[in-house]
Amino acid sequence: MSDRIKIKALLQTTPTEQQVNVKGWVRTFRNNQFIALNDGSTNSNLQIVVDFENTDAAILKRITTGAALSVTGTLVASLGKGQTVEVKATQIEILGDSDPEKYPLQPKKHSLEFLREIAHLRFRTNTFGAVFRVRNSLAFAVHQFFQERGFVYLHTPVITASDAEGAGEAFKVTNLDLNNPPKTETGEIDFKQDFFGRATNLTVSGQLEGELGAMALSDIYTFGPTFRAENSNTTRHLAEFWMIEPEMAFYDLDDNMDLAEGLLKYVIKYALEHNREDIEFLSQRLQEEEKSKPQQERSDMSLLEKLEFCLNNDFERLTYTEAIEILKNSTQNKKKKFQFLIEEWGADLQSEHERYLVEKHFKKPVILTDYPKAIKAFYMRQNEQDANGHETVRAMDILFPGIGEIVGGSQREERLDKLEQRMDEMGIPKEELWWYLDTRRFGACPHSGFGLGFERLVLFVTGMGNIRDVIPFPRFPKNAEF
Amino acid sequence: MSDRIKIKALLQTTPTEQQVNVKGWVRTFRNNQFIALNDGSTNSNLQIVVDFENTDAAILKRITTGAALSVTGTLVASLGKGQTVEVKATQIEILGDSDPEKYPLQPKKHSLEFLREIAHLRFRTNTFGAVFRVRNSLAFAVHQFFQERGFVYLHTPVITASDAEGAGEAFKVTNLDLNNPPKTETGEIDFKQDFFGRATNLTVSGQLEGELGAMALSDIYTFGPTFRAENSNTTRHLAEFWMIEPEMAFYDLDDNMDLAEGLLKYVIKYALEHNREDIEFLSQRLQEEEKSKPQQERSDMSLLEKLEFCLNNDFERLTYTEAIEILKNSTQNKKKKFQFLIEEWGADLQSEHERYLVEKHFKKPVILTDYPKAIKAFYMRQNEQDANGHETVRAMDILFPGIGEIVGGSQREERLDKLEQRMDEMGIPKEELWWYLDTRRFGACPHSGFGLGFERLVLFVTGMGNIRDVIPFPRFPKNAEF
Repeated sequence: MSDRIKIKALLQTTPTEQQVNVKGWVRTFRNNQFIALNDGSTNSNLQIVVDFENTDAAILKRITTGAALSVTGTLVASLGKGQTVEVKATQIEILGDSDPEKYPLQPKKHSLEFLREIAHLRFRTNTFGAVFRVRNSLAFAVHQFFQERGFVYLHTPVITASDAEGAGEAFKVTNLDLNNPPKTETGEIDFKQDFFGRATNLTVSGQLEGELGAMALSDIYTFGPTFRAENSNTTRHLAEFWMIEPEMAFYDLDDNMDLAEGLLKYVIKYALEHNREDIEFLSQRLQEEEKSKPQQERSDMSLLEKLEFCLNNDFERLTYTEAIEILKNSTQNKKKKFQFLIEEWGADLQSEHERYLVEKHFKKPVILTDYPKAIKAFYMRQNEQDANGHETVRAMDILFPGIGEIVGGSQREERLDKLEQRMDEMGIPKEELWWYLDTRRFGACPHSGFGLGFERLVLFVTGMGNIRDVIPFPRFPKNAEF
Repeated sequence: MSDRIKIKALLQTTPTEQQVNVKGWVRTFRNNQFIALNDGSTNSNLQIVVDFENTDAAILKRITTGAALSVTGTLVASLGKGQTVEVKATQIEILGDSDPEKYPLQPKKHSLEFLREIAHLRFRTNTFGAVFRVRNSLAFAVHQFFQERGFVYLHTPVITASDAEGAGEAFKVTNLDLNNPPKTETGEIDFKQDFFGRATNLTVSGQLEGELGAMALSDIYTFGPTFRAENSNTTRHLAEFWMIEPEMAFYDLDDNMDLAEGLLKYVIKYALEHNREDIEFLSQRLQEEEKSKPQQERSDMSLLEKLEFCLNNDFERLTYTEAIEILKNSTQNKKKKFQFLIEEWGADLQSEHERYLVEKHFKKPVILTDYPKAIKAFYMRQNEQDANGHETVRAMDILFPGIGEIVGGSQREERLDKLEQRMDEMGIPKEELWWYLDTRRFGACPHSGFGLGFERLVLFVTGMGNIRDVIPFPRFPKNAEF
């Protein structure tokens, strides 16, 4: 191991006929002579030139797609095209065989659907190597962004007794014997005898706990798994996904939007700088894929252009009320081409409306603010009623091309009376959230926060079409394999 | 907001009578004149000097412990001791009151037990401010360490159908109506009708999935929550905790130990460099706490000294067999002072033995290797039987003073036949882990990995005594509050 050099580093080395050792997996083996070796450090394979006349035939036979090798040899400039250096092998050790009759990955194009079924092996393909290296960079960039700004990374609980946020249906967590659970006198399950002494579930958001941290540490962020037990079989939903949720004391909605826009640009820039090769590959992949689509469904911009465009343009900021006017007066609406026609203020925006605003009208990312109170969560700060009698809250959603909502946030309601009133109206039990309300009783202050769905971000930056392809082992209805 | 400066930055500013705005929470208010203001960016409070003769009495009354303020004033050199600068307030705005009759946190020492019950407010104390800032730094340092080495951060699933690892009892996850679950013809719960179409639980480790990533990307790490449904009411166990699990292709056990020791030193060094003030505070706190203990229970070294000591010394590496000899021949054992006497090879080491080795015998961190096969997991690489007929595996545990096991790892068994045989012996269903076994069928290679319990690391670096005090909202038997 100590002498092994990774392929990414090797490909950047000046060849001076030095001895090197590389380890990796065979992608292809041509003419009993050229091995394309990959070790996951980069999508570029290293060409190994085999001296087949002096290599044992039994060894040559075992150099098959998927086999693990240790190769020692001389690093030389390559005469072939596609690479600048190659290794002339002096010693090849087969670490692990891969029976070509049985190995599911062959050197040809496999469908994404097929690869999802062998998700334990799909890391070994160019596409998924690139996707998971980009995902890695985006995750680290998120941390670096917040660390540079003095935010404290807070691990909010995954198992929680509070089901009050109403962000979606939660999975139950229990340690009871389900076939024979203890019952109360009235015949209900007796959760007092469960592990935590009460009914618990998997968190749908770390926000409420995050606010507790912000009310002492000023700026915090979470980055952890969240869950929805919703039977959504779409390309945009997962039952288990990762969320980033910053909460900031003393931030108003404008500060909040500035931070969110800054974060998105920062992490996209980071990925472009650190994963240029992977993103170029994915951009190419997307263009290939789109060739099979009718002209009008193809993107105007390549993936790379789309990312650059995001970096170089301010996101368009407007209120929900302004957006409704635009949508109502759009030819799309007038010609009844929306599935859900926009008739009046108060309508919840559907994906088709969001995409119209982003992709057709503004042609750039859009931040919508000040949504109707009736369609938003209880903790959002209430605006004064406007001249038309409309009641809105200080919400903001960031809409991205091809993705729709990527960020949802708000200024939080810091006024105890307004908050309690809204909880009462929405039937949210105040006693369960006594600790949340305490932050409004003691040293309350204006504050804001948002949630960024990490997989949606990865989807955007990799140009993949299905959210199940940007998380290692996706969880969705009827699937928890691996 | 735009003009607000955080207190940590302000305290490092040269005072030139400039106008500044700060926002934070009142820690104390003395003589109607001196506010100690804290915003969580540092443990050091900012002194605000109030011109009480020209300040409204109604405002003065509302400057109470816990209240949120926005203060505008002039930054001047401080004449008082304990700070170099202070702010002469020209304007004080009360953002949020804090009724001193009701606010649970008073400017006095509260017990850790009491603070655990108000974990939503304990971030507002010096101790927990320091603990969670140190925790933040350690988490980021972990990421930075691996990123610098080209590892890919992998999010392994939290919900899993595989219960096979045997690392401990798992929580069940379900979306069934527990009061009225669907049953099969034989009267068992029908998990085919559950969300995932099968019984699922919360992961106890991401290792097995991590290995799948390493067999393509070479080096990966996880950093996520893991769970144990064990009724352990100790100061070292949580039902929900965060683990770091790197897996490395082509690493043998020595490489593995080097990486783990390197990681621990890197993150401790990072915390000492970035959180010196917090760690000094926690070191002081520990010394105070130990004053109430009998002399022989006090530490030889302060927290700071212990951390420096860890950085500056190689960890002691020895085999389990060597450790057993040391323990068997120790006066502790001979005088029967161990609760569990070491009589023969094969005994599982208890906490008292680990602590003896680390704290008494070697007086430094210890790495024990090559444990008896019988007491370790199925996936550890089997050694050849030794001359005494002992069967061991290539395991390694890192033992830390005051903590015991902080890292557990091994070289993994890459030989399919040996692995399957061991699974059969231990009754682990091979068909459930078909995907894991596939990595031994196709391109297997020597590889290694380990798990680092993140909270145990935080415990060590902060010098706290109870693991419930180093995670924001601890989960343990009969407790899932907040």
